[in-house]
Amino acid sequence: MNKRKLLLVSNSTLHGSGYLDHCQNHICSFFTRDVKRVLFVPYALHDRDAYAKTAREKFRTLGYELDSIHEASDPVTAVRNAEAIFIGGGNTFRLLKCLYDNDLVTEIRRRVLEDGVPYMGSSAGTNVATISINTTNDMPIVFPPSFSAIGLVPFNINPHYLDHDPSSRHMGETREQRITQFHEEAETPRVLGLREGSLLLVEGNNVKLLGTTKARLFTRNQPSVEYEPGSDISFLLTHTHSDSSLTQQ
Amino acid sequence: MNKRKLLLVSNSTLHGSGYLDHCQNHICSFFTRDVKRVLFVPYALHDRDAYAKTAREKFRTLGYELDSIHEASDPVTAVRNAEAIFIGGGNTFRLLKCLYDNDLVTEIRRRVLEDGVPYMGSSAGTNVATISINTTNDMPIVFPPSFSAIGLVPFNINPHYLDHDPSSRHMGETREQRITQFHEEAETPRVLGLREGSLLLVEGNNVKLLGTTKARLFTRNQPSVEYEPGSDISFLLTHTHSDSSLTQQ
Repeated sequence: MNKRKLLLVSNSTLHGSGYLDHCQNHICSFFTRDVKRVLFVPYALHDRDAYAKTAREKFRTLGYELDSIHEASDPVTAVRNAEAIFIGGGNTFRLLKCLYDNDLVTEIRRRVLEDGVPYMGSSAGTNVATISINTTNDMPIVFPPSFSAIGLVPFNINPHYLDHDPSSRHMGETREQRITQFHEEAETPRVLGLREGSLLLVEGNNVKLLGTTKARLFTRNQPSVEYEPGSDISFLLTHTHSDSSLTQQ
Repeated sequence: MNKRKLLLVSNSTLHGSGYLDHCQNHICSFFTRDVKRVLFVPYALHDRDAYAKTAREKFRTLGYELDSIHEASDPVTAVRNAEAIFIGGGNTFRLLKCLYDNDLVTEIRRRVLEDGVPYMGSSAGTNVATISINTTNDMPIVFPPSFSAIGLVPFNINPHYLDHDPSSRHMGETREQRITQFHEEAETPRVLGLREGSLLLVEGNNVKLLGTTKARLFTRNQPSVEYEPGSDISFLLTHTHSDSSLTQQ
């Protein structure tokens, strides 16, 4: 029995609403009443105190106390004792480097996959929950020891997925072109493009798309496929090779 | 006497025109009539044959023969014998990894800085000419051994620099926010945001902004500054520390 329990959010703030407002009902359903305290990881932003304050205030309104890992004397012990984990967004490279610097990557993986500690991620916190950060949108402002991430699911996510604007005169690559470049490389996993407003609920071997926007799945050497909110996309957990012909049933 | 001679282009194709059309007069002035053959580096794109064909056809119309390094039996020898070098755009991570994999980073640096071989870069080829690829816009589709790059100039560039669109409802970071995140890290160099349509001519210790769009200079802990096309921005070569108080004279 796989104990994995994940809530992977594309973005922490939706245009026109406050921090985590758009997914707060999902957060409360996810953490349930058994959870009293959530361990927050603010490493993706520079000002950790301010970030923890914002997150703490929001979680209090939802009925949860929040401990920030940057205030713990020993981060590994904090993860070992956590009832629940929330990794916030910001810069994915900074976040992953800091997770490695504090020896947290394998410890978080163990706690979530073996002990069933619920894991919520937002944006960069969603990226690091997947196989690797190869499909982040962020600027590589620091050099992490690896792009391999916590690996709670056997696919990659592109948060803040953005459709091409046909009226744009900008000649930089579209998001679709960037993900296609990733899939030009050998043995690359599937990439789920999570538009702002969408989130993923993973419970054991079940994956459901929640929220208000569709998600787009990119598979190496295959056409991309759109999924509506409410879709069961559990098959994403069963085939790790992106170019399997059995992936889109 | 510094022999450095660089033409660093923000983008290879400007909206509404063909490949390298917008900077072709600058290319001809830059390589002069002494150069007969240009060594092209197509590593940033997956289909090197097609990329070399596109570049070769364009350079022929300008009066230059083009040899693609991916067709050479020994890439290091090809660099050692090159009259001129042009590194094209695409994915910056793929490009830099391939430069390292082929032991070309120090060899190109030596040829340009010591032997005065003219170097032209476009987009990703401009990124790798600077201190590091920490300020690329590209997706990190492969893991290079380092983000340190060829280091032909003591600052960083952000090609395809994009101003914030105030009408956008997308909540991902703006380009300015991303560069600001870079400057939250210690000892980070200045970043020149090169908008599409602009390019940089470096001759010895002189730097001139060419093209049709302004460039925006980001310095750690200081307000950003705009420079008009035609500006002499040679001071960028003289101070490597971004938070020096002497950088914006």
